[in-house]
Amino acid sequence: MSEEREQVELEEGSLLTALTQKNMDDFRSVFLEQHPYDQASFFIKLDPEDRQTVYHFLSPEEMAAVFENIEDEDGLYQTFLSEMDPTFAAQMLAQMYADDAVDVLNELDKDQVASYLTIMDDEAAEEIRELLHYEEYTAGSIMTTEYISIHAHQTVHSAMQILKKEAPNAETIYYVFVVDEDEKVAGVISLRDLIISEPDTMISDIMNERVYSVSVAEDQEEVARKMKDYNFLALPVVDFQGHLLGIITVDDIVDVIDEEASDDYSKLAAVSDVDSTDRGPFSAAKKRLPWLIILLFLGMFTASLIGRFEATLEKVAILAVFIPLIAGMAGNTGTQALAVAVRRISLGDTEDQTLSKMIVREAGTGLITGAICGVVVTVVVFVWQGDLFLGALVGISILATLTVATISGAFIPLIMHKLKVDPAVASGPFITTINDIISILIYFGMATLFMQYLI
Amino acid sequence: MSEEREQVELEEGSLLTALTQKNMDDFRSVFLEQHPYDQASFFIKLDPEDRQTVYHFLSPEEMAAVFENIEDEDGLYQTFLSEMDPTFAAQMLAQMYADDAVDVLNELDKDQVASYLTIMDDEAAEEIRELLHYEEYTAGSIMTTEYISIHAHQTVHSAMQILKKEAPNAETIYYVFVVDEDEKVAGVISLRDLIISEPDTMISDIMNERVYSVSVAEDQEEVARKMKDYNFLALPVVDFQGHLLGIITVDDIVDVIDEEASDDYSKLAAVSDVDSTDRGPFSAAKKRLPWLIILLFLGMFTASLIGRFEATLEKVAILAVFIPLIAGMAGNTGTQALAVAVRRISLGDTEDQTLSKMIVREAGTGLITGAICGVVVTVVVFVWQGDLFLGALVGISILATLTVATISGAFIPLIMHKLKVDPAVASGPFITTINDIISILIYFGMATLFMQYLI
Repeated sequence: MSEEREQVELEEGSLLTALTQKNMDDFRSVFLEQHPYDQASFFIKLDPEDRQTVYHFLSPEEMAAVFENIEDEDGLYQTFLSEMDPTFAAQMLAQMYADDAVDVLNELDKDQVASYLTIMDDEAAEEIRELLHYEEYTAGSIMTTEYISIHAHQTVHSAMQILKKEAPNAETIYYVFVVDEDEKVAGVISLRDLIISEPDTMISDIMNERVYSVSVAEDQEEVARKMKDYNFLALPVVDFQGHLLGIITVDDIVDVIDEEASDDYSKLAAVSDVDSTDRGPFSAAKKRLPWLIILLFLGMFTASLIGRFEATLEKVAILAVFIPLIAGMAGNTGTQALAVAVRRISLGDTEDQTLSKMIVREAGTGLITGAICGVVVTVVVFVWQGDLFLGALVGISILATLTVATISGAFIPLIMHKLKVDPAVASGPFITTINDIISILIYFGMATLFMQYLI
Repeated sequence: MSEEREQVELEEGSLLTALTQKNMDDFRSVFLEQHPYDQASFFIKLDPEDRQTVYHFLSPEEMAAVFENIEDEDGLYQTFLSEMDPTFAAQMLAQMYADDAVDVLNELDKDQVASYLTIMDDEAAEEIRELLHYEEYTAGSIMTTEYISIHAHQTVHSAMQILKKEAPNAETIYYVFVVDEDEKVAGVISLRDLIISEPDTMISDIMNERVYSVSVAEDQEEVARKMKDYNFLALPVVDFQGHLLGIITVDDIVDVIDEEASDDYSKLAAVSDVDSTDRGPFSAAKKRLPWLIILLFLGMFTASLIGRFEATLEKVAILAVFIPLIAGMAGNTGTQALAVAVRRISLGDTEDQTLSKMIVREAGTGLITGAICGVVVTVVVFVWQGDLFLGALVGISILATLTVATISGAFIPLIMHKLKVDPAVASGPFITTINDIISILIYFGMATLFMQYLI
């Protein structure tokens, strides 16, 4: 365990004692020295009674810093807010960075949101109301309006004065955006450049006029990609006329990248949400069952398909032995191709040309892997069962299913993407089932056709 | 297509023309205005001849900015460096941020690295040599030594002087670390705090003494987690005595988070590297085949297991119909449990207590999902085949396999983690195969035992 961790745990002990003894001074002297993330981790572990004490020990502003570091799980926001005095809650929300406050309010129902906004002071309410308009997962929904903007005809000195004044409230002061009279983005300058420039330099002389920006309706994944590729610490968000509406900072993007990756991962594994796992078995079962039941019925369909070949099976029972092998290989290659396609799509390679090239490439990959695995299987089955025809049957089935499975694994997510369905949903289950069905049709189809050579 | 993208494509056209006409002024006037990321994207698309022209048109320093934005794929670093004049290459490496230069050198063989370091100026070579010591994927391997440190007994004014002087070379100036006489980390101060403080304030009065740091040997994933949770823009890296060795900046962490997530994802899908997909079918096939061949032999093992029950199968061919269903369900639940366990482990929840709680929880989840799916299957099979005993047999097999599969899906990654093997490797393939085998043993075991009721 790291020293930092040890210290935090020691402190948590004294914080708990202070809460039980209702000793406000002790509590505040330790708590306010902690990083808000540690404060939040401590806070969410408390029982309702201790949380009440915390609300009385902290100011709305201090509580806001804690709340900014709480992630919503199992309706935590709802629970905590309803415990607070409504005025305290509204003041706290007003003190949070507007983008974080919006994240919280998005989890509540409309009536509640409206009542908090009414109690709040007008300026904060206005800021939040503007952000609430934007659709989830867009640039607008993760941006903040607490940025610093300056004009091109200012000097470095006067820009630094503005920075000093605005620093306590702005989410970042490290990038400053330059706007013209119409509030359109005209340039950007980093604090680094401001600091190394002479105080009487004009901003217009040193600003970078090539500003990368994102549209307010842009998907947050696209924003994350831009920020990652270009190593920005902040990106301006503009409307369709190029007016500056807000900025997105790198810390929000770190969360987005992590979420989106988790999301693709969860879907590949057919779990609805892999991250929130601090629950009992019932709630875990509830989350996984919908997938399992769907898969069960898909599996039944596969079973009924095999049922059609019962006559073939009765004559040549050995055929059954290779069902899991063939279906399994089809599932595996399909998932590989799917994973590649989903990642490509979420990395933004979605031009038609790139995609059709991908399909051709996957077809080639399927043929090559299918041919090699097919030969290996033929040899192994021949050696094991001493039946060259059976070996060839299984081998050719592997070749055919691997080719078809690889193509379908790549093709289905593309179709889904075109139909504006998140391709990650196609995931393990569907690709695997489709490939099960295809592989079984090929295998038993050929077996039935060439039955006379098998008996 | 966005405006920015359109502009970049227009520029790429004129850059190509300038290269063909060997027009250095035209080339430089457009190229040097571009963001290094766009420069790199343009550069890697060029043919060798045009690349030669670029090496002659740019200074080593300008080329360094391009190179910092190239990701190594298919030995790109190797190719480009070997095309360059060795002195030019060494000068370029010296001009890169040391951590990026190390990333490049790590891809070359030792002799080459040594020869570049010999040509390079001593200071740069020393810096790089120090970083080359650190193991890949540790904090040491991603940190940079180009940071700014100050002392506690300085004033804000003198600290700002240092910042102005060091800004052009430091990787970040937004966090400044305070060290004591022994070069141990004593505090941290953000540029934001420096700017809003009076020039004659002592650093010791305003610095934050609670510094979060990471050990040089720490796993990069752990570093990423800390940075994400605490929203830092930079973290100091210290040795075991607490001496400041370097810093890690948020842009490197964004890459780490993205890589690690991709990595877990790739392993779940049994592809070695999902991201690098701009290759032909042969190289894609080469990457996937090792997995497929392993899976093929695992599948063969499953097949031979079913082979043992050939006698049972010959008597009751209908049994074969449910093989894919049972094996598929076992695979699906196993993968779900695996995904949850892998994510938990990579999120750092690795204390014994948490983990044993997870196993208990998974066992419960397996029982609940197994019971529900089992009942559904029994009913469906009874309705479909009109055979209650067959329905019950399949249903009970589902109950048993789901329970076992869920536990093994969670348990195996834990064991692997304890054995210091990356649990993500367990992935789809192994969990699925183990669960295939278990499910078939349970299913045919029961079928053979109760054979008399089936015929």
